[in-house]
Amino acid sequence: MKLLRFGAAGAEKPGLLDKDGVIRDLSGVVSDITPETLKNGAIETIAKLDPSTLPIVPAGVRLGPIVEGVRNFIAVGLNYVDHAHETGAAIPSEPILFNKAPNCIIGPNDAVTIPKGSQKTDWEVELAIVIGKTALYVSEADALSYVAGFAVCHDVSERAFQTERGGQWMKGKGSPTFGPLGPWLVTPDEIADVQNLDMFLDVNGTRAQTGNTKTMIFGVAHLVSYISQFLQLDPGDVITTGTPPGVGMGMKPPKFLKDGDKVRLGITGLGEQEQTFHAYKG
Amino acid sequence: MKLLRFGAAGAEKPGLLDKDGVIRDLSGVVSDITPETLKNGAIETIAKLDPSTLPIVPAGVRLGPIVEGVRNFIAVGLNYVDHAHETGAAIPSEPILFNKAPNCIIGPNDAVTIPKGSQKTDWEVELAIVIGKTALYVSEADALSYVAGFAVCHDVSERAFQTERGGQWMKGKGSPTFGPLGPWLVTPDEIADVQNLDMFLDVNGTRAQTGNTKTMIFGVAHLVSYISQFLQLDPGDVITTGTPPGVGMGMKPPKFLKDGDKVRLGITGLGEQEQTFHAYKG
Repeated sequence: MKLLRFGAAGAEKPGLLDKDGVIRDLSGVVSDITPETLKNGAIETIAKLDPSTLPIVPAGVRLGPIVEGVRNFIAVGLNYVDHAHETGAAIPSEPILFNKAPNCIIGPNDAVTIPKGSQKTDWEVELAIVIGKTALYVSEADALSYVAGFAVCHDVSERAFQTERGGQWMKGKGSPTFGPLGPWLVTPDEIADVQNLDMFLDVNGTRAQTGNTKTMIFGVAHLVSYISQFLQLDPGDVITTGTPPGVGMGMKPPKFLKDGDKVRLGITGLGEQEQTFHAYKG
Repeated sequence: MKLLRFGAAGAEKPGLLDKDGVIRDLSGVVSDITPETLKNGAIETIAKLDPSTLPIVPAGVRLGPIVEGVRNFIAVGLNYVDHAHETGAAIPSEPILFNKAPNCIIGPNDAVTIPKGSQKTDWEVELAIVIGKTALYVSEADALSYVAGFAVCHDVSERAFQTERGGQWMKGKGSPTFGPLGPWLVTPDEIADVQNLDMFLDVNGTRAQTGNTKTMIFGVAHLVSYISQFLQLDPGDVITTGTPPGVGMGMKPPKFLKDGDKVRLGITGLGEQEQTFHAYKG
């Protein structure tokens, strides 16, 4: 299934994309897609439906973030062999984890604001995992059974905030609008091999990132198991799993986003996002 | 005012501590203390009441965390001059920020679980700030007007997970039960000078930490303003502001918590916590 949320920001309704690419309204079936409804079996409930019986939503509706009320929004750093090489960093011996602020999550095609004072706003196409069941100390063998689904995540990053302001990376990862998430929450049964998905990102129509999840250093099952050794993953928590090569800071000379730039990104089977970047206006 | 939440874990009701130290039931006035109710003026509503008109709650009731549904739980590292010295670290030129998992928050006197595989679980008494209004790019001069109140926070930390597992500190800060928060959310009008509060922490009855918020490197107003340059602080978000000297890893030889240890901690005007630590039993 491809689940989604549609409608005005803050007033989204749950929906799904049917086999013909038509959005169907799920609001008569589940109240929303949230940690609480995921915990209470929303996906299992929806899976029993015949989508053709659901109301059709007019095309062109705004898409919201695929889940509302995320609490743990965890990101993995330097998790692609080829991206680690481009940054000049050593291959990590264990996953590098940091947090994105959960309130930076927006819809997949919403505008992104370049933060006040930013000179180094950069792009990162990533595969995100949405947790479906509470996971603590789970084995790698069992880890995928805790996953509700997958999505495209744009891990927008401010490199000066991330690396030049002392300490930890989270300073450059959580500015408002820095987490476009969607268009769909795709359930695992639709993905033949999550470790073999092509991904891309274009800046103003020019290809910047090209990658495949097969070059991840730590795969999806390993990450869910690993993170669950350090904290409890709850339904609705999101893990974004790192980016392949081609980010702006890796270019020679480095290239960053400016007012009016358009970024398009996508992953095979998970859909595409497109954002326009705007300078902050106080 | 001293606001609190009481009752069984997961089913707490809102309450307040009146001038005689009696808990009064607020559940007829506000549904709970959450990001949503704080945003909608819960504190202003409660402030208009005469506490003597509210139902009395029997003494001895369990206290829960002071706010339910926290999303951003942000911690400040090495923020006391005397603690930075004890760890051998340089005085930071800007606040060091990291995240604690919001789902590690528990009541002030709940049991704490030493994580699976942990050898270095350590203590940290801290002053926590609870945000009352959305704050983005706020000045230091205005910052305190965004604060709903203050509380004691125990920033329980696993030092090996924090510093020996690659990358960022959050690995050692978010294990389940690592965030006792309370007993009360104390509104700013009750605190004469938040930068002059004594704080202490005892392990098995022996004083380990002694400090005062006056040795903070970056004070409360600076921290709220600073963090709001990097992400949006929303009502119910919690900032825990660093610990004074006396943590276990600073002792010679280092000392860490083990099964059955009891920790008591407190801050002038904000009350006290007491936890028993238990080894993880899978």
